[in-house]
Amino acid sequence: MIELPEFRTLRGMRDFLPEDAEKMRYVEVVARDLARLYGYEEVITPVVEHYNLLAAKSGEEIRERMYAFTDMGGRRVALRPEFTASIARLVATKLRHEPKPMKLFCAGSLYRYDEPQYGRFREFWQANYELIGSKKPEADAEVITLTYDLIERLGFRNYWFKIGHVGILRGILAQEGIAEEQQNTIMQLLDKKRLDEALTFTQESGGSQSCIAALKKLLKTRGKDVFQVLKEAKRVVENYESAVAAVDNLQEILELTRESGVKFETLIEAGFARGLEYYTGMIFESYVPGIEIALAGGGRYDKLIELFGGEQTPALGVAQGIDRLVLAIKKQRVLLKTAEKNKVMIIPVSEELRSKALELSLKLRKAKIPAEVEVMGRTISKALSDADRREVTHSVIVGPEELGEGKVVLREMKKRKQRTVEIENLAKEILGDASAFPSSIQGVT
Amino acid sequence: MIELPEFRTLRGMRDFLPEDAEKMRYVEVVARDLARLYGYEEVITPVVEHYNLLAAKSGEEIRERMYAFTDMGGRRVALRPEFTASIARLVATKLRHEPKPMKLFCAGSLYRYDEPQYGRFREFWQANYELIGSKKPEADAEVITLTYDLIERLGFRNYWFKIGHVGILRGILAQEGIAEEQQNTIMQLLDKKRLDEALTFTQESGGSQSCIAALKKLLKTRGKDVFQVLKEAKRVVENYESAVAAVDNLQEILELTRESGVKFETLIEAGFARGLEYYTGMIFESYVPGIEIALAGGGRYDKLIELFGGEQTPALGVAQGIDRLVLAIKKQRVLLKTAEKNKVMIIPVSEELRSKALELSLKLRKAKIPAEVEVMGRTISKALSDADRREVTHSVIVGPEELGEGKVVLREMKKRKQRTVEIENLAKEILGDASAFPSSIQGVT
Repeated sequence: MIELPEFRTLRGMRDFLPEDAEKMRYVEVVARDLARLYGYEEVITPVVEHYNLLAAKSGEEIRERMYAFTDMGGRRVALRPEFTASIARLVATKLRHEPKPMKLFCAGSLYRYDEPQYGRFREFWQANYELIGSKKPEADAEVITLTYDLIERLGFRNYWFKIGHVGILRGILAQEGIAEEQQNTIMQLLDKKRLDEALTFTQESGGSQSCIAALKKLLKTRGKDVFQVLKEAKRVVENYESAVAAVDNLQEILELTRESGVKFETLIEAGFARGLEYYTGMIFESYVPGIEIALAGGGRYDKLIELFGGEQTPALGVAQGIDRLVLAIKKQRVLLKTAEKNKVMIIPVSEELRSKALELSLKLRKAKIPAEVEVMGRTISKALSDADRREVTHSVIVGPEELGEGKVVLREMKKRKQRTVEIENLAKEILGDASAFPSSIQGVT
Repeated sequence: MIELPEFRTLRGMRDFLPEDAEKMRYVEVVARDLARLYGYEEVITPVVEHYNLLAAKSGEEIRERMYAFTDMGGRRVALRPEFTASIARLVATKLRHEPKPMKLFCAGSLYRYDEPQYGRFREFWQANYELIGSKKPEADAEVITLTYDLIERLGFRNYWFKIGHVGILRGILAQEGIAEEQQNTIMQLLDKKRLDEALTFTQESGGSQSCIAALKKLLKTRGKDVFQVLKEAKRVVENYESAVAAVDNLQEILELTRESGVKFETLIEAGFARGLEYYTGMIFESYVPGIEIALAGGGRYDKLIELFGGEQTPALGVAQGIDRLVLAIKKQRVLLKTAEKNKVMIIPVSEELRSKALELSLKLRKAKIPAEVEVMGRTISKALSDADRREVTHSVIVGPEELGEGKVVLREMKKRKQRTVEIENLAKEILGDASAFPSSIQGVT
């Protein structure tokens, strides 16, 4: 029966077994702790929302790849492909009267019917940070810094950022009289590196020769010498007023970041475009060597809240790919912060002592020591050899004679040494021994 | 635009705003910590699975209420209505060769198209614990104890358990020659308290007069004097061998629990049935006064793994309703464990000092102090009054003169007192002040 396709996960969907699930939760905990440290409050929104909400401004590519269906009540619904539409809905409705700036965090699973490939799945996880209400460059600098801070706290030492500003390209196109819808198509073609098509479409949409020339130059205006690249970009767009303003804005953001002492490798791309239609300003992505997909992506979207019926509200945000960060942690063999930990197995020597074993396990857990009880009814020697295989640090053998004196046998598994200890000192004795096995990840505080 | 139904959550789906989202995450963290203490390892499975997997053994009622649809690849899929089918799939496939007992934990959202009512939503959250491989009553006792432990750790002081054993009813029906499918229908009718229909259907399925009489008596055999009720039940079913064995098994489980020192109010119902078809042994639910729905539900399902193509494997599990626990916490005004915490706002007096403010915020966060930077470009007095409204404990005012001496102004918001402090002592100074506001929930370790 397990050969039936029904009993496998769906294409593009994954199970995370304990080792990977622990890493997923670790990244989520670090991301949530970071939210607290930066003053972002968590909200939880549904996985299933109205199709029209999710489709409103996500861009054609995502819209076509949504898990959309009709529910039993005849409603057109979909699984969220990203968090931003739900957050914009909240800000325009239930959180409408909250003071600005509003800082929101959310974490959970998202769904896109993309072709599965390395690091790209149909169910994926993100931790999202949204800073709503500020149009100032220090807000942009904060969101970039927060992304840097997460990647540093996770222990990566080798990473880089790609940063641009959609106002550079859109500023040129707008001044050429190209409508927003055509601009969206051009941005999408550029995002997919279909440059020739993008330029042809620009020309067809009424873009002048000098506009095409400027675009061509811009697409080559990239590099790691940040302020040099920005200087070049400014020269290329000098005849396009709002494109110049966009370059200036980007420069101010990057100066703020740099002056605050945050240092990371940055690739500036004057012609950088991201897939989502709603960006209006600075956009960025983070990367690590060896993985071609972005670990995080974000930017400014000053018109989105308005679109959802809210007041005109400047805003920006970043989505951190939780499963992609786990992939990168494994790829780069990043050592997660771990703590030594004990793992205790309690083995009653006979059926009559099972309830005593249960009682002892409760005591140890109250002392924050992970404790399991032998529940297979095995002999002591079988239970001990199973404990060895599971990397248990201590076994506690509960026998009638010792118990009569208020004692049990405590065995240090790795040292293969055992001693008789008072039950009332059991937790202390276990905590006193150096734990024998390196632990897996523990919660971060 | 916000008046459009598209910009509201779907019927039966909810947003959790910060105060409630924090409680949701708190319960999840406590549940995960408990899993670690009991030796349950976490796995993460997809929200979307093959329809046939999820429909295989969940019972007609749930099957009819699944969010089922056809994906873009023409596959019949559904959103999981519970975790157990996915866990059984894992155990029968990827975890097939892991040593037993296997203890698995998972936590996440589930979906059922039920009629929304108090405490019952179309998207809900559970923390699930599965103990796989043991047929012993100490395993049953552990799963009950774990549920008791969670509810105690969350701070409830007023709760009770309903416990039964499907083997009592099924033992009678089987001995009467009633097929499993008919048994399922009878169990479902009983679960819904449609007793007359259940008895009529039993008769129609070939149940004898003495069987009907026994069932009628059993349905009244309930009460809080645990061992007295079990004695009565045994008398009622004395002619049904496997029903007697079921009562004995339940008695052994409850004796183990009681002898291990765990005490909680228990209602024994000899005629207790739960909605899911796959239960084979002990079943239980936990409740708090004032809320009629169960906070947790679980039991033994010894045939389920086999059904998914695994080896014959005894198993049991429990699902803790995360959002229901939050509902109960609010209803009973349970005080969650909190810690005092600081919240710092850093305000630069001029644009030139914004990067210095960003730099200081990074320093404070490194010292684990939540710190925000004024990103609205407001005047000091406006920023301070906003900080007051947000219950900020300290504001740090960054001015050029103090900065020249390596200092900033530190203002204790509630006391309305400020002093000039060395930047290098800033974190220490803040941590030295008693924080002025009670904090919200912090992570548990």
